[in-house]
Amino acid sequence: MKRIIVDMDHVMADITTHYITWYKERTGVLVDRKTLIGKNEVAAFPDSEMVRNFLYTPGFFRTAPVIAGSQKVIKELNRYHEVFIVSAAMEFPQSLFEKYEWLQEHFPFIAWEQIVFCGDKKVVHGDYMIDDHLKNLDTFEGNKLLFTSPHNQLITGYTRIDNWQQVADILLTDKAIKKAVTLDVSQN
Amino acid sequence: MKRIIVDMDHVMADITTHYITWYKERTGVLVDRKTLIGKNEVAAFPDSEMVRNFLYTPGFFRTAPVIAGSQKVIKELNRYHEVFIVSAAMEFPQSLFEKYEWLQEHFPFIAWEQIVFCGDKKVVHGDYMIDDHLKNLDTFEGNKLLFTSPHNQLITGYTRIDNWQQVADILLTDKAIKKAVTLDVSQN
Repeated sequence: MKRIIVDMDHVMADITTHYITWYKERTGVLVDRKTLIGKNEVAAFPDSEMVRNFLYTPGFFRTAPVIAGSQKVIKELNRYHEVFIVSAAMEFPQSLFEKYEWLQEHFPFIAWEQIVFCGDKKVVHGDYMIDDHLKNLDTFEGNKLLFTSPHNQLITGYTRIDNWQQVADILLTDKAIKKAVTLDVSQN
Repeated sequence: MKRIIVDMDHVMADITTHYITWYKERTGVLVDRKTLIGKNEVAAFPDSEMVRNFLYTPGFFRTAPVIAGSQKVIKELNRYHEVFIVSAAMEFPQSLFEKYEWLQEHFPFIAWEQIVFCGDKKVVHGDYMIDDHLKNLDTFEGNKLLFTSPHNQLITGYTRIDNWQQVADILLTDKAIKKAVTLDVSQN
């Protein structure tokens, strides 16, 4: 059993899709995901100030869609490993309760004991960290798994995971586990 | 420089006094602190159900008084060490934003990067942990400092600290620091 530290935004919550949806609703402009590759996730939008404000808007985090496969795989990880959901939520304190409710709705098998809202993730320790931000992975002493997001897509030198099936392939490798887990992570 | 993990309830926030005040306001009964010694902090009250409900009542954590000396000493710790405020707030999710606001009001020198709200503190690591609960100290790998509270007053076998002056004596030991810190921790 390993302790696995799982990030929320861009790993469990599809914040990129949420940005694009909210942006389209407010400006009429549909931003192509490809234009976000390799750029700061907020600054990449034509009106970056508007996107920055989304992060402070009540309801934004509460209504984020779930990343495909995350529910099934985290449910299985939770059976065989020690899972902690660790979100750097403290920068947006209005999001604290929203993120708690979001987890209750979409990941009801995660107990309150397994949730951590912090500012700087260097204070947590474990065996694996799944995160889309280098700043979080770089201060982690265990194994680092970079979860692909447009903003980090051009980064090299990290163990990259493109989807939750790949997480399962790494962390649910035992044969008995494999047998128990019938995964179809293309759909939630 | 050491990483110091500081608990909120019963260490920074005087929850015992707050229980007694709220209890008196609601029942007319003034509970003697001495009757709380060595007992579960909630069960020790005549109507423990009422006290348990305080923890879920909006405003309870927001209005807690500050423990004498904590502001001065933590402000100094923050100059010479790496301080993280770590509260097991997740059991009472309505308290998350209240605790954030309480810190903003009483400890404005603590940045959001230094705050952690979690369920199980075994996920954090550091050099020192100041906490009133054995369950938190027992899973910590660094130095454990048991902050005295009525509920833990009969416990032996831990390095006990009775007040914030004693924390200063342990963690602000360098002569230069001593000189810079003119502490009167009897008053806030």
